[in-house]
Amino acid sequence: MSDTFETKTPNRRAFLRGAATAGVGAFAAGSAGAQTPDPLITETQEWAQSFGDGVDATPYGLPIKYEDDVVRRNVEWLTADTVSSINFTPIHALDGTITPQGCAFERHHSGAIELKKEDYRLMINGLVDRPLVFTYADLERFPRENHTYFLECAANTGMEWAGAQLNGAQFTHGMIHNMEYTGVPLRTLLEEAGYETAGKWVYVEGADASSNGRSIPMEKALDDVLVAFKANGEALRKEHGYPVRLVVPGWEGNMWVKWIRRIEVMNAPVESREETSKYTDTLANGISRKWTWEMDAKSVVTSPSPQSPIKHGKGPLVITGLAWSGRGAITRVDVSKDGGKTWETARLAKPGEKMALTRFYLDVDWDGEDMFLQSRAMDETGYVQPTKTQLREVRGLNSIYHNNCIQTWWVRPNGEAENVEVS
Amino acid sequence: MSDTFETKTPNRRAFLRGAATAGVGAFAAGSAGAQTPDPLITETQEWAQSFGDGVDATPYGLPIKYEDDVVRRNVEWLTADTVSSINFTPIHALDGTITPQGCAFERHHSGAIELKKEDYRLMINGLVDRPLVFTYADLERFPRENHTYFLECAANTGMEWAGAQLNGAQFTHGMIHNMEYTGVPLRTLLEEAGYETAGKWVYVEGADASSNGRSIPMEKALDDVLVAFKANGEALRKEHGYPVRLVVPGWEGNMWVKWIRRIEVMNAPVESREETSKYTDTLANGISRKWTWEMDAKSVVTSPSPQSPIKHGKGPLVITGLAWSGRGAITRVDVSKDGGKTWETARLAKPGEKMALTRFYLDVDWDGEDMFLQSRAMDETGYVQPTKTQLREVRGLNSIYHNNCIQTWWVRPNGEAENVEVS
Repeated sequence: MSDTFETKTPNRRAFLRGAATAGVGAFAAGSAGAQTPDPLITETQEWAQSFGDGVDATPYGLPIKYEDDVVRRNVEWLTADTVSSINFTPIHALDGTITPQGCAFERHHSGAIELKKEDYRLMINGLVDRPLVFTYADLERFPRENHTYFLECAANTGMEWAGAQLNGAQFTHGMIHNMEYTGVPLRTLLEEAGYETAGKWVYVEGADASSNGRSIPMEKALDDVLVAFKANGEALRKEHGYPVRLVVPGWEGNMWVKWIRRIEVMNAPVESREETSKYTDTLANGISRKWTWEMDAKSVVTSPSPQSPIKHGKGPLVITGLAWSGRGAITRVDVSKDGGKTWETARLAKPGEKMALTRFYLDVDWDGEDMFLQSRAMDETGYVQPTKTQLREVRGLNSIYHNNCIQTWWVRPNGEAENVEVS
Repeated sequence: MSDTFETKTPNRRAFLRGAATAGVGAFAAGSAGAQTPDPLITETQEWAQSFGDGVDATPYGLPIKYEDDVVRRNVEWLTADTVSSINFTPIHALDGTITPQGCAFERHHSGAIELKKEDYRLMINGLVDRPLVFTYADLERFPRENHTYFLECAANTGMEWAGAQLNGAQFTHGMIHNMEYTGVPLRTLLEEAGYETAGKWVYVEGADASSNGRSIPMEKALDDVLVAFKANGEALRKEHGYPVRLVVPGWEGNMWVKWIRRIEVMNAPVESREETSKYTDTLANGISRKWTWEMDAKSVVTSPSPQSPIKHGKGPLVITGLAWSGRGAITRVDVSKDGGKTWETARLAKPGEKMALTRFYLDVDWDGEDMFLQSRAMDETGYVQPTKTQLREVRGLNSIYHNNCIQTWWVRPNGEAENVEVS
């Protein structure tokens, strides 16, 4: 139970009464003390008059048909082909912090492949005492850990560098998911192979046609990287790297190599296609930053937002969103209703956890006027999420990746919202 | 990162080497320093030679076809009809603590009904200042909370009273799931209606034909009960009460009323069909305990187990399972390999959380001999999970519900396991 919520109305009992009196509430009971049964409660209800589905109907449960709009969506014009593209998590329609695998976004470099556990092999070679090849069954014999981490694509919010572009939190910030992983620390497997002290890097590649090779410093590899085979309790989905993927907490998503098949211990980074032609940030002077691994602290209001408008008019309103940092735990989130002029500290649903999504809420009494909604995340290092202007001052306008600026939604009196920039 | 794991082998680098030398390991690299590439890595791999699926293939992601045995299962002879029956979570095949909604068990009294958000109403009446009817949209305007809780059916493990019956953790202990819920505290809605001081109980009913009415003391209703509309981030599944269910942390599952439509504030319990003809425990003297709400501390080894045999022979083995308590957090789990004669303290994947599943691991070097595997949970109240014998001494043999005894799996040298009783 949270003790931090403070109602904005003087009398908690009358939380929604003001709204009802103003004609925008949906209560059937019109006034205090009145007992006005809702027709839907007392009249014949189809669902209360007959049996529903038995327990053999859905061996694996699926979302109800009424929720068929809560799905991943891709943007056709974004890439030339869907096998080298991305879709987006419907964060505008979710709550809490866990992302169900079914809703978790996908990014592929050469499509999602089907790889059986029986065919699966993981090689560790290079600067090691003895190169090893592990089967899936081998991996299951090493001590496991469980951790909940977010994965954010380096390109998330990338279209915003040039200004407000995509209209919806799903499209501006939906290249992210947050799951509870079960796996073996990479450190354990490197120790099993006997990594040499000359080994300062690991080069990791996947079994798909792209191989998506990435170099990771040994310090990170020995710290918190996992070789994971479960997410949210069950096997990884095909599109997330079944049967085994790398989990690189807090670092850009493309390093979380899927269908991982080989880890080579090296004395230098490979500087592969995937870490030179992509995922680097070109600054205003034309020079590119070489590595940008950690995802900076960031947040977004998920509702209200363009895909989640206010339909109930003025009065009590729940403003909610997500915050995260690749450098540790979120310690505070502020929300502004006036485009950053004034800020209120939001309520965190739970204390922030390292490299995991944090849900925030601000419960307000909306006056029905225009709002320019923003959120601003702070993490345990003291880092504060920058405005678009602040970010552009440092990074220029040539970047595609690593945009963690404050997002603005213009909410109009009719409750509809739009992606806008405020100066 | 957990610091509590202690390897049972003196040299971490040789963790699996002993197994490989003994001929039961699956490594392709036969000896230290040898570089024996696996044929599957170097020969033509279909999945590395062609594109996989694009990002438009699965708007809502589903488990890969190779995992189609990881599903809920029902037992046909258990009840007369599937609309008033149960299926079981495949806990033997899951890891971590979150139960995906698709795998989470179902129990219905008259089948799973389809109820649209637009048609949904929740009435609060009885001893209140003003009876109210809430729409789904109304509920979304109140301050929300997020909490991860287990739900266990009172009948979970009930077949074990008479001895070892069902062969598999899914069937003996699978009437349980653990999800992150988003909802509004019931306290908030009761305050909105203005509950009277004479109101000592709430009577809660669902919109299905059974209505499954249950009485809950006001003290619990005002404490941590949630009116929940999301689980693991997304909408509840139809079979778990879409669009709204009650969450009653730590208490027996049948009180978590699904498709909740009415909450009446009363001065006494109703003593309805669902709380008199069922869910009571008849003791040895023929007298039944009136209420048994809190689920006692309990645990089970999920792997190895009858449905999850050891296939790799002796050597390093991960023993894992789940522990939970309706009275608070799990503080410790012990594991026995010899039917309770000696115990080792297991490693908790994370510190126990109140009324939520806790994952435990014991990493052992199996000698290939018979094991009589047991686990024993302890919670923050100091309660220790009892043996079957201890439980029968107190409760007799007439019970059906609330069996939290220590479970035994007999693991044979061939790795297969069986549900047995030890004296």
